[in-house]
Amino acid sequence: MDTATTTCAAGDLAVLLSSSSNSTSSLAAATFLCSKFTNISNKLSDTTYAVDNTYLLFSAYLVFAMQLGFAMLCAGSVRAKNTMNIMLTNVLDAAAGAISYYLFGFAFAFGTPSNGFIGRHHSFFALSSYPERSGADFSFFLYQWAFAIAAAGITSGSIAERTQFVAYLIYSSFLTGFVYPTVSHWFWSSDGWASATRSDNNLLFGSGAIDFAGSGVVHMVGGIAGLWGALVEGPRIGRFDRSGRSVALRGHSASLVVLGTFLLWFGWYGFNPGSFLTILKSYDRSRPYYGQWSAVGRTAVTTTLSGCTAALTTLFSKRLLAGHWNVTDVCNGLLGGFAAITSGCAVVEPWAAIVCGFMASWVLIGFNWLAKKFKYDDPLEAAQLHGGCGAWGLIFTGLFATKEYVNEVYSGDRPYGLLMGGGGKLLAAQIVQIIVIVGWVTVTMGPLFYGLHKMNLLRISTEDEMAGMDMTRHGGFAYAYNDEDDVSTKPWGQMAGKVEPTSRSSTPTPPSTV
Amino acid sequence: MDTATTTCAAGDLAVLLSSSSNSTSSLAAATFLCSKFTNISNKLSDTTYAVDNTYLLFSAYLVFAMQLGFAMLCAGSVRAKNTMNIMLTNVLDAAAGAISYYLFGFAFAFGTPSNGFIGRHHSFFALSSYPERSGADFSFFLYQWAFAIAAAGITSGSIAERTQFVAYLIYSSFLTGFVYPTVSHWFWSSDGWASATRSDNNLLFGSGAIDFAGSGVVHMVGGIAGLWGALVEGPRIGRFDRSGRSVALRGHSASLVVLGTFLLWFGWYGFNPGSFLTILKSYDRSRPYYGQWSAVGRTAVTTTLSGCTAALTTLFSKRLLAGHWNVTDVCNGLLGGFAAITSGCAVVEPWAAIVCGFMASWVLIGFNWLAKKFKYDDPLEAAQLHGGCGAWGLIFTGLFATKEYVNEVYSGDRPYGLLMGGGGKLLAAQIVQIIVIVGWVTVTMGPLFYGLHKMNLLRISTEDEMAGMDMTRHGGFAYAYNDEDDVSTKPWGQMAGKVEPTSRSSTPTPPSTV
Amino acid sequence: MDTATTTCAAGDLAVLLSSSSNSTSSLAAATFLCSKFTNISNKLSDTTYAVDNTYLLFSAYLVFAMQLGFAMLCAGSVRAKNTMNIMLTNVLDAAAGAISYYLFGFAFAFGTPSNGFIGRHHSFFALSSYPERSGADFSFFLYQWAFAIAAAGITSGSIAERTQFVAYLIYSSFLTGFVYPTVSHWFWSSDGWASATRSDNNLLFGSGAIDFAGSGVVHMVGGIAGLWGALVEGPRIGRFDRSGRSVALRGHSASLVVLGTFLLWFGWYGFNPGSFLTILKSYDRSRPYYGQWSAVGRTAVTTTLSGCTAALTTLFSKRLLAGHWNVTDVCNGLLGGFAAITSGCAVVEPWAAIVCGFMASWVLIGFNWLAKKFKYDDPLEAAQLHGGCGAWGLIFTGLFATKEYVNEVYSGDRPYGLLMGGGGKLLAAQIVQIIVIVGWVTVTMGPLFYGLHKMNLLRISTEDEMAGMDMTRHGGFAYAYNDEDDVSTKPWGQMAGKVEPTSRSSTPTPPSTV
Repeated sequence: MDTATTTCAAGDLAVLLSSSSNSTSSLAAATFLCSKFTNISNKLSDTTYAVDNTYLLFSAYLVFAMQLGFAMLCAGSVRAKNTMNIMLTNVLDAAAGAISYYLFGFAFAFGTPSNGFIGRHHSFFALSSYPERSGADFSFFLYQWAFAIAAAGITSGSIAERTQFVAYLIYSSFLTGFVYPTVSHWFWSSDGWASATRSDNNLLFGSGAIDFAGSGVVHMVGGIAGLWGALVEGPRIGRFDRSGRSVALRGHSASLVVLGTFLLWFGWYGFNPGSFLTILKSYDRSRPYYGQWSAVGRTAVTTTLSGCTAALTTLFSKRLLAGHWNVTDVCNGLLGGFAAITSGCAVVEPWAAIVCGFMASWVLIGFNWLAKKFKYDDPLEAAQLHGGCGAWGLIFTGLFATKEYVNEVYSGDRPYGLLMGGGGKLLAAQIVQIIVIVGWVTVTMGPLFYGLHKMNLLRISTEDEMAGMDMTRHGGFAYAYNDEDDVSTKPWGQMAGKVEPTSRSSTPTPPSTV
Repeated sequence: MDTATTTCAAGDLAVLLSSSSNSTSSLAAATFLCSKFTNISNKLSDTTYAVDNTYLLFSAYLVFAMQLGFAMLCAGSVRAKNTMNIMLTNVLDAAAGAISYYLFGFAFAFGTPSNGFIGRHHSFFALSSYPERSGADFSFFLYQWAFAIAAAGITSGSIAERTQFVAYLIYSSFLTGFVYPTVSHWFWSSDGWASATRSDNNLLFGSGAIDFAGSGVVHMVGGIAGLWGALVEGPRIGRFDRSGRSVALRGHSASLVVLGTFLLWFGWYGFNPGSFLTILKSYDRSRPYYGQWSAVGRTAVTTTLSGCTAALTTLFSKRLLAGHWNVTDVCNGLLGGFAAITSGCAVVEPWAAIVCGFMASWVLIGFNWLAKKFKYDDPLEAAQLHGGCGAWGLIFTGLFATKEYVNEVYSGDRPYGLLMGGGGKLLAAQIVQIIVIVGWVTVTMGPLFYGLHKMNLLRISTEDEMAGMDMTRHGGFAYAYNDEDDVSTKPWGQMAGKVEPTSRSSTPTPPSTV
Repeated sequence: MDTATTTCAAGDLAVLLSSSSNSTSSLAAATFLCSKFTNISNKLSDTTYAVDNTYLLFSAYLVFAMQLGFAMLCAGSVRAKNTMNIMLTNVLDAAAGAISYYLFGFAFAFGTPSNGFIGRHHSFFALSSYPERSGADFSFFLYQWAFAIAAAGITSGSIAERTQFVAYLIYSSFLTGFVYPTVSHWFWSSDGWASATRSDNNLLFGSGAIDFAGSGVVHMVGGIAGLWGALVEGPRIGRFDRSGRSVALRGHSASLVVLGTFLLWFGWYGFNPGSFLTILKSYDRSRPYYGQWSAVGRTAVTTTLSGCTAALTTLFSKRLLAGHWNVTDVCNGLLGGFAAITSGCAVVEPWAAIVCGFMASWVLIGFNWLAKKFKYDDPLEAAQLHGGCGAWGLIFTGLFATKEYVNEVYSGDRPYGLLMGGGGKLLAAQIVQIIVIVGWVTVTMGPLFYGLHKMNLLRISTEDEMAGMDMTRHGGFAYAYNDEDDVSTKPWGQMAGKVEPTSRSSTPTPPSTV
């Protein structure tokens, strides 16, 4: 760093001070001193931007890593014959999401000023004049993009193994480009009608909904969208037998499921603590060591405790209910605990996070029981997990948010959790959020999936479903462990002449209609 | 940032200075100036907290990623039939460890004041009044939790493929909740009897043991615990044939082994450099660019060089000894080099790290030779690697720690490495650490494993071991690559009626006794 | 933080100021004030080092994670029988690269002063007196090492599945230790003859080549080296049939390909934005919120947009050309978009990044078409992707670099992109870079590969290639999913006596000549 602007030479200053009873000289001394203070102030300001952007960028990278987690979780949870298909949707969530969020999604979500329903200021489309102000840097765009693609990833899990690829491309663009940005505008933009950080302070119920990192905005949106997709499509062939009994169609790799789950856990440390957006902020001068950096750390701790409690609860309850110790169920329980704490992670005590996770596990078990009863087939349990546990998370925040943390994280004196003595206003706002999200996603995504269904663009053919989409649409099977299938190990004569159905030949599949 | 508090208007200050020969006015000028300095000081202090907490939190996330690394390494190193079992233990290390470390483990380890043996101050249990002071923020808790779960992960490797799940739950809680926290209290707490950072400066041999990131505290504890577990259980069926010849029971996926190894390497950059806990600390004003940030970087370099040297040494020595270039052996060598440098990484020169890694490779080869000779079966070589190389690492620090770095990292003039001219006191403390850890883990974990064994709670039945635990205890086989096993591809008539032994049916296994 | 040095007591200062018309006292007051400013300045300086080193170290860790990405991408892209081989080369890139880069590679690349061609100052070999100055800390070494090993990783992809392990060890050391460091010296060192940051300001064409994060220095070097290796070796057996028709030898695991691709994406956020090396730097006082932290964020955004555009372009073009939606092709397209934007990421607008990615996809398709036409076999498409898209990236920068960003990132008024009105000088420098890299890598690596070929050290035998290197050279097959092959499930009598060809026995393969 160039230190010349912030240090001074005592001799020079002494001359100025010694004659400072004279008003000209005193101005010189003052100018000298003040220019030092100004330089220091500028450097402090630069430092704050650098620290906060470093914090936000690396958090964004972690959130991005969740996309890899989703890809592996989804891949492991489907049958081997549909692995390429589901992984391609996960890659495209990120890729197509980047383009659509850049072009208009981000403007819909955070363009300001807005009408409270959707952002629309021209300077936000395609980042055309960005950044124009503090707090709206490229790091913020990157962070929000990483959130947007998570929602679409959740939905793809619900409709896995039976959806046409073209349907995926359509719903995914619509969800990432319009449905999700609108919801995030309502709850997270400074103009949003239900936002707890509304700049004009005209808060819903004097409170606004507290969905700190998106149990509702991200998880419920993705989960409810998946619910409608899966309902319209119906269950996979063989998922329920003739007598209606549920038959598990197990995923093809528990290792990928565990890999994906741990990566999601890893990335959640960007998702929840990162949602503070900044870390260099003081809360209370009387406790100088305590500030936003402490709240960030506490958020990481509440997140951890909720997920872990949910995992343990699931372990023991599934042992009682199903008779074995099941690692994939434990993984889903863990993720349910994370989805639930995502709303309140920043404003509850660590002990409350344990309550959150414990209940999340039972919410997931309950919704899975309902799903089985109503013959609802969701290969990733995405609607149950992200929709169900996400909704529980919003209620949990309305019950357990503490006064101190709400006041620190959302400035000012305002309603907090019902059970913590903060009255029912916050809880009311949370319930409104649940209703509004269910309603909005239903009226947008429901008709979309129904329309695709009516146009025969939604579900794949029975033949494709039996054979697996990888063979029929994606160029081949995902794996070739058995080298005996390998053409290079066969005599040359045989190899040249023949393309066997099981060989991994490069002969292009004839173009199909989708 | 609000800059108003740190800048000043020259005109205002000039008025104050011009009349400052008058004592009232001079007080006003001084108050004005000092309030500026105070505000600047506060902001500098806030910045330090924000930077250090950012550094520690992201380091903690990296250490957490090691748990994923362990899970993949363990999974790949066992046979396919026990994959779900070993991965479940890895998930539970993290999950159960979070709850037990939150409730009491952290208080045992870092609760202060203590009696030197174990922390016990009430405010640390369940983080009940935390943080109360600088240096004890939530980030520190998260970081220490991530360390605690690593120890239990090491042990689970030693006893893989033959241990009852209930035994795992018992030893794991005991290790994470009591055995490990106690050891970390001795060596890392400011009250620990052998700590090099003891606040009363009454250091063991005037030095205290230097175990910077835990070659002893983490790796030896996990490894020695695994040693006793594996000794009490005995080898897996088929590990040594009738004539006593060693038969390798190869893991089922080298890809998972390499994936896990690289993830551990990645996470080790949180483990070793992160153990500084802070990064914004100046060492020497005469070299303004040099401070703790340099020491952190140097620690990353020594860590890298030690692991890489061990990997190369293992590559060539195994080529000579076994006749092939073996990637899984190279991975183990690499990890041995990391486990060894973990103690001294912050206080040795880069060239010394190469010596450390070279020797670590031979230590591992030596202990593996001993293990074979004594028919000791450790599927992950965890006792040899973490116990053996960890112990070597402690000795290495006693030999090669440099004066300059010891004085910088552990403040004050104190003993350093024997071969660097620092006398034998540090080495003596290191040897005491080895003895004490071996002793403590032996008297706690040894009886525990023996008791479980006597109660028939330790080892699984021969039938379970032959069939694999996944089928008998965890709900099914981890993989289903062959879609011909998939019920959905079978004629409907067949599917409904039959549950084949190899099908991945959801029919619950009858509850068993464990 | 110790705040005593930056705060002051008003009473003390008042005494000094009140008598400051007296020159002795005024010196005391000035000394008092200046010592405050000096302390503040020191702390600001420390803070800058801590923030910048934190930023660079975590970026280095991300770049290191790319090595894991390469390992998984390569593993998934080869046939199962060569998995252990390719993964071992990836582990060794990192391990052997660390030792050779520490001993001399880093000195060749960044040792200063130099002769403009190669660094040679003694203090840089083995980090013998390092760090000696600001901007050259251990974090910088670690970051550059992570770059060096990436180049060797690219090359190993081109020659996969048919190269002797000993040849790998030789070319890899030569590339990481000499060929790559030299190129990085030319373009990135402050002494490099074509560097845009040359300290004496004697720039090539008044501009220097702008290769911000290494489309040329890293990707082209690795790709062109791979090109020569693959050309000298010729295609794998069976890659082109008797009639010359291309036969795809599909990789064994699409899941590993997607895993590797996402990890590379994740790591690229360290590679490109991290190449700023620092983040705490102000650009323009009139926009206080805007500085290097914004440019870093923008770089992350351009990187994302280019890769994503390339992925989408590849998706649809491959759908048209080959008739299916192919996830592995999309992954390669994505990586091509990243390789291309790596040169200009810091100095172009986000919209231009979309142009970059769109063209990168077609460049890759074009080079793949050429490769097929000329029967060039590159299992990872590494030469086409890293060489071809890397070269396009250098041209792209010469066309689209904006004035504002070039002036901010590379200080001073200098040439910028031709299409942005900046004249042809930058483009000329970029073209020189392409020519020079192709030439240098050709005259160094070409003869090396040819020499190895002549000495029969390059290509494996036909028998080894048919059987797979894992069985013949690396101790066995990488996978054992089928537990029926497992000795422990067989009757004891059978197990002891027999070592079947398919069993995963530990019996050492007889030492072979390589």
